Amino acid sequence: MNQINQVAVIGGSHGNELIGVYLVKKFQKYPDLIKRTSFKTLSLLGNPQAINAGRRYIDRDLNRCFLPSNLPTSEMSNYEELRAREIQNFLQTSNQNLVDVIIDLHTTTANMGICLIFGNMHPILLNLAAYLSSINPLVKVYIHEQPRNSGFLRSLSELGFAIEVGAIAQGILDAELFQQTEKIVYAALDFLESFNQGKNICTTNSLTIYKSINAVDYPRDKNGEIQAMIHPQLQFKDYQPLYPGDPIFLTLEGKKISYEGKSIVYPIFINEAAYYEKGIAMYFSYKQEIELSSSSL
Amino acid sequence: MNQINQVAVIGGSHGNELIGVYLVKKFQKYPDLIKRTSFKTLSLLGNPQAINAGRRYIDRDLNRCFLPSNLPTSEMSNYEELRAREIQNFLQTSNQNLVDVIIDLHTTTANMGICLIFGNMHPILLNLAAYLSSINPLVKVYIHEQPRNSGFLRSLSELGFAIEVGAIAQGILDAELFQQTEKIVYAALDFLESFNQGKNICTTNSLTIYKSINAVDYPRDKNGEIQAMIHPQLQFKDYQPLYPGDPIFLTLEGKKISYEGKSIVYPIFINEAAYYEKGIAMYFSYKQEIELSSSSL
Repeated sequence: MNQINQVAVIGGSHGNELIGVYLVKKFQKYPDLIKRTSFKTLSLLGNPQAINAGRRYIDRDLNRCFLPSNLPTSEMSNYEELRAREIQNFLQTSNQNLVDVIIDLHTTTANMGICLIFGNMHPILLNLAAYLSSINPLVKVYIHEQPRNSGFLRSLSELGFAIEVGAIAQGILDAELFQQTEKIVYAALDFLESFNQGKNICTTNSLTIYKSINAVDYPRDKNGEIQAMIHPQLQFKDYQPLYPGDPIFLTLEGKKISYEGKSIVYPIFINEAAYYEKGIAMYFSYKQEIELSSSSL
Repeated sequence: MNQINQVAVIGGSHGNELIGVYLVKKFQKYPDLIKRTSFKTLSLLGNPQAINAGRRYIDRDLNRCFLPSNLPTSEMSNYEELRAREIQNFLQTSNQNLVDVIIDLHTTTANMGICLIFGNMHPILLNLAAYLSSINPLVKVYIHEQPRNSGFLRSLSELGFAIEVGAIAQGILDAELFQQTEKIVYAALDFLESFNQGKNICTTNSLTIYKSINAVDYPRDKNGEIQAMIHPQLQFKDYQPLYPGDPIFLTLEGKKISYEGKSIVYPIFINEAAYYEKGIAMYFSYKQEIELSSSSL
């Protein structure tokens, strides 16, 4: 990619993740905040009905609906499928390509700090991440490799990514996390502006990333009922090493369950509220230091 | 009251407050845990449909539906009104009186510790509170005086009270808070058992209480849109003194708003997710030390 022409900032794809909702409302009130000279910036509330209802979604998780589909709009059965199609149309530029960059704002009840979630290891994304983590040490990078159009909003663009901010409860604002997220959005836009100007403002050439291994569910009985909770020693310990034998769950009866794997893993998304129904207690990841080549930009 | 004959422990009146939900499931699996010799203990999941949906309520907040009403069941228009009637029937003992004690388990995104909420200052409740706070210093007492049958489940019984546990996000379990709440429930039952046996196991005769003054809403524009967040210096500072001039809100633009009252207040329920729609950013309370008379039991 030689030039970024359009960037979209989207909040409220999940209606109860308020930091993104109120940041986008602010950007729509003061569009100069996200305006840069070398590209156009769009902003959008992802799921207005869910925002009004104070819920993650109405019928189905919107951020799993961005799939290639041959269904005509009239045959779509629920609100989020229709809304996903509307958003795709909104993000479509005149030449039939989607916007070059999507910044999708989320929050999580897990202690994820300010986590950039990438579906690929594009050098522009990695240099952006290194720049943002130099601004705020809370910035972490999670690589969950996914093909284009895999259901996630961010997967519509090669340079699409999510910013997952936490720990914060669903349905509330947190002023500190709001302001930190806001600064990271501005810094991301500044980075893209400098890229368009042929500069790389990232001054570091190394980056720590966490790469997804697999999801881990809660212990459940044969009816699917949860039988254990995240162990207190693991709660809020996202990105920390988990060693074989370390406690991972605590049953409702108070019995410890240990991690039985053979290698060190780095759990993230620990105890995310929205993942109970998805059968995910956490993701295991491995930690990796990588070298960046700014010349590849 | 000379004798407590029946006690009800209820969880999941709000479907996304999981500690109460899973405690009641545990009590129903192991009923001996809440069995005592001198009274009968019932346990109940308050709002099964909302629990399944992972939401606070389906149509209307169940914990505002316990009102005297002459409507026949057939004319009730929504799920929670019907469910409130069902719960009242369940709690009705053979002599047409309701259970003597209701323990209603809740969680909150505010940093409330383990808060006992009383609608009156009955000496049994105050001695119970003093006993429980001697067991766990996280136990606090909030007095929000209300008449019987004022809408809240707890208001059905003179000795009804809520246990509000936090800070915890909606939709998740927290093992430490789960176990602390569980211990408090057992200790409350032990206290009631000792009362029936003519003893008062509370060994302290003083108690700190927080008495409700008024609710405070977020700054909003003329359309009702929130214009400011809880100030970072106030977030999670429930029960701490707020002095005239202290910061209370931070606007989305980053401007500080100070508390303009003339006296010290003690904010509680700061930034509770479910109260955004109710127009409540926090409650102001005043702090009071009271002397208990065990002889009045």
